[in-house]
Formats: sequence, structure tokens, C-alpha cells
Amino acid sequence: MKKSLIALALVSSVAVADEGMWMPQQLPEIADKLKAAGLELDPSDLTKLTEFPMGAVVSLGGCSASFVSPQGLVVTNHHCVYNSIAYNSTPENDLLANGFLAASLEDEVAAAPGSRIYVTKAVENVTAQVIDADTAKLTGKERVDAIEDNYKSIVAACEEDAGHRCAVSSFYGGLEYFLIKQLEIKDVRLVHAPAEGVGKFGGDTDNWMWPRHTGDYSFYRAYVSPEGKSAEFSEENVPYQPEHHLTIASDALDEGDFVMALGYPGRTNRHRLPSEVENTFEWSYPNTVERFRDNLDIIATQTESNKDAELKYASRVAGLNNYLKNRQGMLDSFANSDLLQRKKAEHQALKQWVNNSAENGAAYAEDLQAIERLLAERHESEREDYYRSLATPRLLGMAAVLYKLSQEQTKPDAEREAGYQERDLPRFKAYVAGLDRSFDASVEMALDFYNLKNYLQVPTEQRDSVFDEALGLSSEMSDAELRDLIASWYATTDLTELDVRNQLLAASPSQFVDEDDVFVQAAVALYPQQQAEQDEAEELSGQIQAAYANYMRAKIAFMREQGEAVYPDANSTLRVTYGTVTGRDHGTYDGTAWTAFTTLRGIQQKATGEGEFNAPQAQLDAIKNENYADYYVESLDSVPVNYLATLDITGGNSGSAVLNGKAELVGLAFDGTLDSIISDWDFNIDNTRSIQVDSRFMLWQMEVVDGADNLLKELGIQ
Amino acid sequence: MKKSLIALALVSSVAVADEGMWMPQQLPEIADKLKAAGLELDPSDLTKLTEFPMGAVVSLGGCSASFVSPQGLVVTNHHCVYNSIAYNSTPENDLLANGFLAASLEDEVAAAPGSRIYVTKAVENVTAQVIDADTAKLTGKERVDAIEDNYKSIVAACEEDAGHRCAVSSFYGGLEYFLIKQLEIKDVRLVHAPAEGVGKFGGDTDNWMWPRHTGDYSFYRAYVSPEGKSAEFSEENVPYQPEHHLTIASDALDEGDFVMALGYPGRTNRHRLPSEVENTFEWSYPNTVERFRDNLDIIATQTESNKDAELKYASRVAGLNNYLKNRQGMLDSFANSDLLQRKKAEHQALKQWVNNSAENGAAYAEDLQAIERLLAERHESEREDYYRSLATPRLLGMAAVLYKLSQEQTKPDAEREAGYQERDLPRFKAYVAGLDRSFDASVEMALDFYNLKNYLQVPTEQRDSVFDEALGLSSEMSDAELRDLIASWYATTDLTELDVRNQLLAASPSQFVDEDDVFVQAAVALYPQQQAEQDEAEELSGQIQAAYANYMRAKIAFMREQGEAVYPDANSTLRVTYGTVTGRDHGTYDGTAWTAFTTLRGIQQKATGEGEFNAPQAQLDAIKNENYADYYVESLDSVPVNYLATLDITGGNSGSAVLNGKAELVGLAFDGTLDSIISDWDFNIDNTRSIQVDSRFMLWQMEVVDGADNLLKELGIQ
Repeated sequence: MKKSLIALALVSSVAVADEGMWMPQQLPEIADKLKAAGLELDPSDLTKLTEFPMGAVVSLGGCSASFVSPQGLVVTNHHCVYNSIAYNSTPENDLLANGFLAASLEDEVAAAPGSRIYVTKAVENVTAQVIDADTAKLTGKERVDAIEDNYKSIVAACEEDAGHRCAVSSFYGGLEYFLIKQLEIKDVRLVHAPAEGVGKFGGDTDNWMWPRHTGDYSFYRAYVSPEGKSAEFSEENVPYQPEHHLTIASDALDEGDFVMALGYPGRTNRHRLPSEVENTFEWSYPNTVERFRDNLDIIATQTESNKDAELKYASRVAGLNNYLKNRQGMLDSFANSDLLQRKKAEHQALKQWVNNSAENGAAYAEDLQAIERLLAERHESEREDYYRSLATPRLLGMAAVLYKLSQEQTKPDAEREAGYQERDLPRFKAYVAGLDRSFDASVEMALDFYNLKNYLQVPTEQRDSVFDEALGLSSEMSDAELRDLIASWYATTDLTELDVRNQLLAASPSQFVDEDDVFVQAAVALYPQQQAEQDEAEELSGQIQAAYANYMRAKIAFMREQGEAVYPDANSTLRVTYGTVTGRDHGTYDGTAWTAFTTLRGIQQKATGEGEFNAPQAQLDAIKNENYADYYVESLDSVPVNYLATLDITGGNSGSAVLNGKAELVGLAFDGTLDSIISDWDFNIDNTRSIQVDSRFMLWQMEVVDGADNLLKELGIQ
Repeated sequence: MKKSLIALALVSSVAVADEGMWMPQQLPEIADKLKAAGLELDPSDLTKLTEFPMGAVVSLGGCSASFVSPQGLVVTNHHCVYNSIAYNSTPENDLLANGFLAASLEDEVAAAPGSRIYVTKAVENVTAQVIDADTAKLTGKERVDAIEDNYKSIVAACEEDAGHRCAVSSFYGGLEYFLIKQLEIKDVRLVHAPAEGVGKFGGDTDNWMWPRHTGDYSFYRAYVSPEGKSAEFSEENVPYQPEHHLTIASDALDEGDFVMALGYPGRTNRHRLPSEVENTFEWSYPNTVERFRDNLDIIATQTESNKDAELKYASRVAGLNNYLKNRQGMLDSFANSDLLQRKKAEHQALKQWVNNSAENGAAYAEDLQAIERLLAERHESEREDYYRSLATPRLLGMAAVLYKLSQEQTKPDAEREAGYQERDLPRFKAYVAGLDRSFDASVEMALDFYNLKNYLQVPTEQRDSVFDEALGLSSEMSDAELRDLIASWYATTDLTELDVRNQLLAASPSQFVDEDDVFVQAAVALYPQQQAEQDEAEELSGQIQAAYANYMRAKIAFMREQGEAVYPDANSTLRVTYGTVTGRDHGTYDGTAWTAFTTLRGIQQKATGEGEFNAPQAQLDAIKNENYADYYVESLDSVPVNYLATLDITGGNSGSAVLNGKAELVGLAFDGTLDSIISDWDFNIDNTRSIQVDSRFMLWQMEVVDGADNLLKELGIQ
């Protein structure tokens, strides 16, 4: 008999973390917190975009990445290079299924067309140029137009430096504007991707879930001209030599350790007003969830015994399901939170602070009232448009867009509305051509019936009479009459023919007017009103911009007075977030918790040999044989695979380098958990966890399973 | 923006616990450990079986329970009184589905026939009487017979005290014998059971699983004659007034707290020799798992389009599946453990200790050698019998048992073999009658074919020639010939007729000999050999008893020399085990952990409104409305439902009172987790967790949902 007096240290850690997607230049403001959390670097080192480590961090446009060798090797998520793997796959050589490893530079293949690597070179506050003295005097649509003109000239001046892409981004809801100047690398090549059974292990089932076991990493390489300049793909190009690159950590990463993520988060809404939260969570999301659920049911019914239609709508069904999983996750979190009450209380405190001082009152009170009124106006207008907008048949939507294009094409290119210029034509061509692959009249008729019936339940006086007239709609219609009407459109329209759509792509406005297709006629009839509505919306936007900026100014002043640094909502610009590696005391199911790390054991548990859990046999064999190489972690009795941290990330952060306190690479952020999605609106340290692929798993897989010795050498590992 | 500097205390606890199912009189030996673990009582108080708290602990025969009021109210698990609820259910009044609550004593209903409550009154070491001087000189079958005779006379003397049941139990593998004297309460009534959607919430799906949310509690009441004596059910009977009863804890139970369970664990095998572990886990379990899996497949195939047969085998299929889940759980645990190596090393150390001293060598060396030889002999004999025993057709098995009964009935009742006496006849009647409800010839033929084919693959010389001859078997048979042979048995036998079986129940041996039924003839032919084999087995048992007892004597001496107290393996006698309320750092899935408590939230999560997860609507409403009464626990933000502890329990402990350090009731043990099952052989503190229903959940359900105010008052709660 063994007498055991065992001290069982269960998942135990103290996480000290803070929300925040900080602009690099803000970090000195929170230097004490960063130091206390475990950053060993001087926080001011992180403000220098062209120094280490920020100089190694890049954007792929929608994803984040980083240089990890002096030869322009870039590491990011597998899902960020997915299109490039697919682009190079053939039925005979299925790189998605089997993975890809270039044995040498010559074997590296071009990434998917349009793939880019952006290296942020400069971030400059241009608020005074965007809202210059003249613009500041304007309001409404005039203000919007002036801001857009200022944008254009700032960007044009910046882009005179060839090979760079420049953009002006709005921060703090239009309070500040920054010019972002990025080196644009156009020759991007795929270097290495693990098999889909590693890089996408778990598939949609595990998406947004923990426990997770995804090897979501892959490698690109940046190429430039022999002169070192940005250049389109060419065999003569050479690897780009970044001034800085990240190195992989030699210290073991443990639960409780400091980590930070450097990347390009897309959008958050943390500074929104209570009315915006209310409108979103109590009206917009629930309504749209309901509509989309119904749409899914309709598509399922219509495609039930029609394999062709089912395939045509597969991508849309996946998209709707993904949307629903996301939004329902947010709604569930919202229902279990006091977000709205807190927002209201915080806003109330802000108003009190404004009203308690004559000076603050003079500076902010008027705009604080104005912004609530203006937002109410915008919400009302959105609600008015809601059912009509959902009820617009797809072919009518397409006809309207093509007619607008035809109208814009009567102007000189430079004067056309953004999105309707010469350079946008390939996109229109693809749009028009793509319809056939995703369109089935019987499905569309059923969807139109459902959506139009909902629309017709809106009282006549609140409906759009031009829309009603153009389509022949009236509230007196019976279901049968409505069905007949819809059927008559699809019986006569010839927009279902690609030739006809292509003709319209090149047609003049008068040719549209002469066309007797029902959808084209409706598009022509609706056009003046559409333009008027757009002008109205811009008028409102201009008013909102001024008031919103001042609301944010008040909010920032109020918080600064309380000693709090304020970070702007995410807007796809470079940010730093820090936190702690830590599990969670409550898991998905009551009675469970989440540990900080998963291990190779979990891959064994989940592997099914097919579908989303098709772990490669060589990997399973290596696990079974306990072939851990140098990546064994004793406390886990295995190799770590993924880990949780309190990093404040969102879409766009995918592929972000996650660094330890010494700024060494310890992993890549690639996902959050379902109940973290609401953090786009409300960061909750109890729930929010980012999911990272551990760099040790990446190296283990590359060394033990995929034999990527050349890359390991380049990474300085072997 | 909220700045949060939150200290996240994840599932964090230090468990100090020890394995052990201690006989109450042993507790002073481990007094220091009990005190250190948190027992506030004097450990010697727990040795007094007729004092508090042990006097409140009772057995239901197969389950444990305890008195919780001065009026004989008994609390135990719902699954321990399940038969009694079913027995009182009718289609019109489905107590299983709806639950049962007697509003007053008059409304209490009789438990299922045979229900008993046993109150242990005395435990006496009778080793010197069982192995008296004469017996000690005997060996083999003579020794077994002498021990049995001694048993009988000790029990008979004890049972002269009317209303008591006495039994002699063997401890430490036959080293010691104790006489257990119990008051036998025969009038047992059902008082209260929650709805099955509470008491069996989670059903087979959650069986042996965590997280768990089962309200596995119910109440009986013990009744005695107006004179206070044990009596069969009678309307005149009155509630039994126990001298002691448990009270429900007023202190909150927290993670890390001391708990102990008092109950009647069934069987463990912790003191087994390495060869027994090896034989079990490397031969017996894997072989039987394979056979049973195949049997399940055969039954599934045969009953696929035969609903009648499917129903007849439903119970057997459930039993086989339950067995497989259990044994596979053990085999998985064994595969992931070093149990066998440890056992071998421990046994090696024991042998070394024996051989290192002339005195120990003289006392133990011979028996240590003998026991290994004798066990090898027993294992070999079991293996030889294995395929034949599995291949014995069910009807042949029944004929053999009935023929033996007929032989035994030729002797005076007192001289007959145990199990074949007059008082056993009702059991035989039920056995014979029950066949029709679980027998289908086509299924049996398919099973016989599979089992006999396996048997015939054993080389002829190792097979049983009498069995082969009686059934006409030979290894030269083709599959078709074997099938034909089997079909011929079922075509001619009339044992499938109840009348015939009933006639055999009363038949004399010579009537059996004259019967020309194939199975009866085979049974008659096999009888002499069967008896000889039984004698051989008893001969071996007698040899093993003596050697095994001395092996245990050596082991105990060895361990005592190392300062370790030694508890005997479980044998359905009263035991005490103590431990700590604690979760686990590794859950069912990699990347998860188990928290110590589940809460009402989990019921909401699991409830489906049907089947195994049919939580009552009133309960769900109460949860939704956060109607927590006085049972809210802030750290859980809910009411606790079940909790994990390191208590060392096994089958038979179901319903055990779980007490805090003050000996107040904090819950009832009702299950362990799947990877705890192997603890019957090897207690592993990392994995083994008992599952308890929290007394606060029981009270919450009774108060808020079921309105059991009368019982709450009796329990001293309201």
C-alpha cells in the first residue's frame, strides 16, 4: 500500500492583466503597468516603428504577421495564407490536404494574386490637416466632402514615395486622424504550410472553441527587386531583408507569464454610446438573427431535393451560419451581462462631470445633447430602411449597382464616387460573372416572398412608395397575389443571363432607361431617391462627425482626470496588447474549467482520421511514440499545442506575433473563444481569452513530423 | 473604460488526502492524520458502533444509508430506492416520473418486497473460532468444509437474538474473520423521492461522468412493531426510533474542506498479488471485453428486424454495455498506469524483507512461494475452463442447475449445499419462469455458434472430452455442420416450454436420466465431472486460504514495520474513508479541468425537456427566477448541486452519509468518475474522485421545488 500525502496544485494562477489595444506611441503612458505585468524591455522601445521589435511586425491586410529571419521569412496563421495554399493546389497535388514545404528558395511559389505584405513605416497625427480651419467651420455633407478631399491630398502626397501605400485613419470616433505610411511588398511567396489536418485541425467545429489543438501557422517570404524596392512578382526578385526580425524564445513559457501581441486589430466598439449599444443588441442583432435563421430555413427547404441549388448556396449557408454563431454568441454574452446598465451609468457620470463645471459645460454640453439626438435620427432611419433593404431582390440590387456605375461613368474618372472608378471595373466584372454560381430562381423567389411579406407588414405610410410602385407592391395583396407577382418577375427578367448582365456593365444610362426588364426599370425608378438618401446620410454623417469627436474629447478628458489612459477603438492600425497566459475557472460546461495549455494528448483524443479532425498519421505516430524532441514540458507531460491568454485581440489580429517579456516569439494569436466575441463591445477579463498556437508546437511539428530542417535552421533553431 | 486589475483565482486548492476504507476500530491508528486532515471529533468516537455518529449509519444490503431523524427517517440515494419507487408506480400514477412525497406517516408506502434496513450492532473478531486449533491443522477441501461449519455455528448462536441477522466476514484475504451482528428492519417504507428528472438526471449518459447534476437522494422510513422489535410490514407498526441520527450541516461546505464517508463498500482488490493483477488485466478483462463486444454485435444483428427479440434482450444488452463501459474504463486506466510494475516491485520488496531475516523467512517464505504456485494453478484452471464455460448453451446451463437441485433434494435440507435448500426454491421458480422473457432461439443459436466455434479452436487434448461427447462436438466440424448441430438441439428441445421446466423443478434424478431432451441428457452426463471439478476447486481454495492468509500476515507485518497502518480490502462491512472536497487539474478532455462543485446553471445547460435530461419545469423556473432560498453560495453565484472529493469509495458506498469535520451531514456519495473505477485495484489520488450530491441541493429542491416542508421540519431545517 502506498501512503500518499500529495499536494495537488490544481489549475492555479493569478492573472494580472488589462484590456487595451494600445497605439505604440501610447505605451509610455502605461509603462508602470507594463513593467509590473512583466515586460522586461523599456516600454519606450516599443514606440519606435522602425526599431526592434515593432520593425518586425507586418500586416497582410486583414491579418497580422511578422518577420522571423533576415531573409524576409514571415510567419502568420495558416488561415491567413489559406487562399495562397488553395491557389497552388491541384487535384494531383493537393497542398491544402498534404501541406507544402519549399526545400529551397527556388521551390517557393507565388501567393494568391493580390497577396501583400505591409510594413508600417510611419504613423503621423494629421488631425490638423484633415479638420483644418476651413473644414472646422463646415457642417453636414459639406464637412464630409471636405474631409474626404483632405484625405485624398494627404494620401497623394505621401504616396509620392514609390512602393508605399498610405492611408488616413480615424481614431476616437473622428476626434483624431493619423496618416499611416506602409511599405507595400507585392511579391509574396508561399514557403511552408502544414497539412490542413494540422493547420485547420478542428475546422468549423472547434472554431471559437476551447479546448483547441490547431497548428494555425504558415510561412510566407517577402520578395523585392534586386535593388531592394517593392516590385510585382518577378523571377529576378530577391528575398527582402528586413532591418529587424523576431527570434523564437529560448525560455519556456509557463502559466502566469507575461505576453504581448503585436498586430493589426480590425474593429472594436468600446467607446460607443449607450444608445448605440442598445440599438445594436436589442434591435439590430436580434432582428437580423431572426431574419437570417428564417432565411436559412427557407434555403434548406428549397434546396432539399435539389443538389445543384444546394451547392450554389453552400457558401452562403456557411456564411449565414458563421454569422449566426458569432451574433448569437454576442447576444448570449449580452444577456448574461450588465453591459447596457454600465454603459448608461458611465455615460451618466460623464454628463454629470460635464454639467458640474461651467468650462466643461461650455466645451461639451451642446455636443453631448446633439450626439444623442443625431444617433437617434440615424437609428430611426436605419430601422425605416430595414425591411425594405432586406426585401430588395438580389437582381434588383445588382441592377441598381450597375445603373449607378453607368451614371458615374458619365463623369471623368477622378470625379467619380469611390468604388465606381476605372480601377474598380474588374471587381464589377467578377460580381456580374459570379452570380450564376450562387443563384437559383426558386430559392430567390422563396426568399423574396418571405422578405417582401415582412416588408408589407410595415404600415403603408411608413413604407417606401417609390419602391412599392416600382415593384407593384401593395398591402392589400394576398399571399397568392404576392407569389404571382414575384413569379412574374423571374418569368420575364433576363438578368439571369450572363450576356445581358455583361451588356449592362457597358451600357449608358439611357440604354438602362430603354431596357424593359422589370428589375432594370425598378432600378432606374429608384435611382433619384437612392441618391437623395445617400446625400441625406452624408449630411447626417457630417453632423455626427463633429458632435461624436467632441463627445470623445469629453470622455477622454473625463477619464484622464481619473488617471486613466485611453486607447482608441481598433481600426486596423498597428496596436500592442498585453496580458497573461492563463486558463479560466469556468469552462464551457458548469463543473469544468479551462487549463492554460493544451497538449499533444488532445490531438490523439480528437483525431478521427477524417474530416475536420484528420490529424496526419505521421503526427499521431510521433505522439504515440512520445517523440517529443526538445519540446517536452514536464508539468504538462507532453508538448504544449495551444494556450489561452488574456490578450485583448479581435479580427485582424490573426497571425499576430505573441512575445514574452523579452520580446521573444512564444506563439501566434489565432482565435478567441465564443464568449470572448462580445469583447469587441465590452472587455471582460473573467471570460475573454485569446487562443495562441504555441511556438514549441510549431517547431515540434516542423522538426519531428514535417522535416522542415531548412526553415528551422533559418529560424536559428538547428 | 474600466480598468481592471483582477486577481483571478482559478480552480485552486491543495488536497491532502489518503486512500483507505478503514474499519471503525482502526481509526485511532490514524488519529493524527485524521486530525491533520480536519476531523474535529475525537477519532475514537468513531469506533463506537452504537454511539453517535456510527449508530446512525445503516446498510440497505448493497447500498449505504443513514438515520436523519429521531423517527427513523433514512436518507440514501435515489438509485438505491429505485425499485421501491417503481414497485409503487402505475401507468396512472407514475411515481418514477413524477416523484413521490408522503404528506404524513399514513401516506408512506411499503418499499419493494425484500427491502431491508440493517443496523450494525456489533463487530467481533472471531478468527480464533473460525480457524480453531483443529481447523488450523487441516488443508484443502477439509479445511474449507471445517471453516464453513464453524461459520454456521457462530452465525446460528448470534441469530438466537431474534430480529438480528449475523454473518461472518473474511478480512485480509482470510487472515481474519469478524462476526457482524445487525438489527434487521423488515418494514421499510418509501417516504420521498424526487422526480426521475432530478433523482436520475443525466441517466446512463452521465453515469460515471463529471460534470454531474444528479439529485440522487431519497428517503425511507424504518418501522418496527409497537414493542420496538423487528417485524414484517404491518399497519400496526410504528416508526423505529434510532438512538442516534445525523443532522444536516449548518456550516457551508467549501473546496478544500475535510469530508468523510460512512458506509458499506462492496469489494476491492488492493492487496492482490502481482500475478492476480496480471491475470485480470492482461488476460481475463481483455478477453471478456472482446467476447462481450462480439456478443453485443451478434445480438444486434439477430434482433435487427425482430422487435420482440430486441425487447427480450434489452436488459442483457444494457448489462453488457454497462459491463463494457466499466471494464474498458479500467483497462484504459491500466494501460496508462504503472500498476503492474509497482505491484511487482512492492512484492519483490516484501519477499526481500522476508528473506532478509531468518525469523521472517521461517514464518512466511514457504507460504509466499506456495501462494504464487497455487494462484498460478487457479489461473490455469480458469483459463482451461474459459472457452467451455462461455460456450455452454443457456438451456444446458439451466438443465445442469436443475439436475443438481434434484440431486441435492435427495438429502435432508440441512445437509444440502448452500443455495440448493428449501428456502432457495422461490429463486429457482423465478429463474425458470423468467426465461421466456429473455430468450429467443435464433439469438441463442447465433451466440452458441460463435462461442462453440471459439471453443473448438482449443486443441482437442485441452478440451473437455465429456462436454464434447455430450454435445456431439468435434474439431473436424465445418461451420455448416456446427450450425446444423446447434439447430438440431433447438429443433428438438422442449426446455423452451415453461411447463417442462416446471416439471423438471420437481423431478427426481432418475426422471432426469430418463428424459431424452438433448440439454437434459448433456446435463446428466456432465454432472459427475462438475462435482469433481467443484471438489477440486474447494481443495485448491483450502490450500489458498492458508497460504493467502500468511501472505497477508507477512504484508501487514512488513508495512507496520514501515509505520503504515493497513486497512483490509472492502467486503461489504462498515467502513470509514476520509478526504477533501476538490476538483481536478485535468478533466475529461485535454485543455480542461474539473471544478469541485457543479451548480444549478449546469441543470439549465443540460436540460432538454425529455429523456435522460428531463429536468422538471418547476425546477427550471426556480433556477431561471434565481429562487435560491437560503442555499445561495456566493463564490458559485448559485446553489451547489454535486461535488467532487477524494473519498475512497466503491460500489456499496452508494447512499453513504458524507460528513464534515464536525460529523454533520454535507451530502451523499453516489458515484465515482470513469477513471476512478480502477481504484478498486489501485487508488490514484490524481484521478480518483467520488461524486456527492450536496445536501444544500437536496434541501433546495425539497423546499423550493417539491414543497417537502413536513420533511424539512423533521430534518430540523424549518
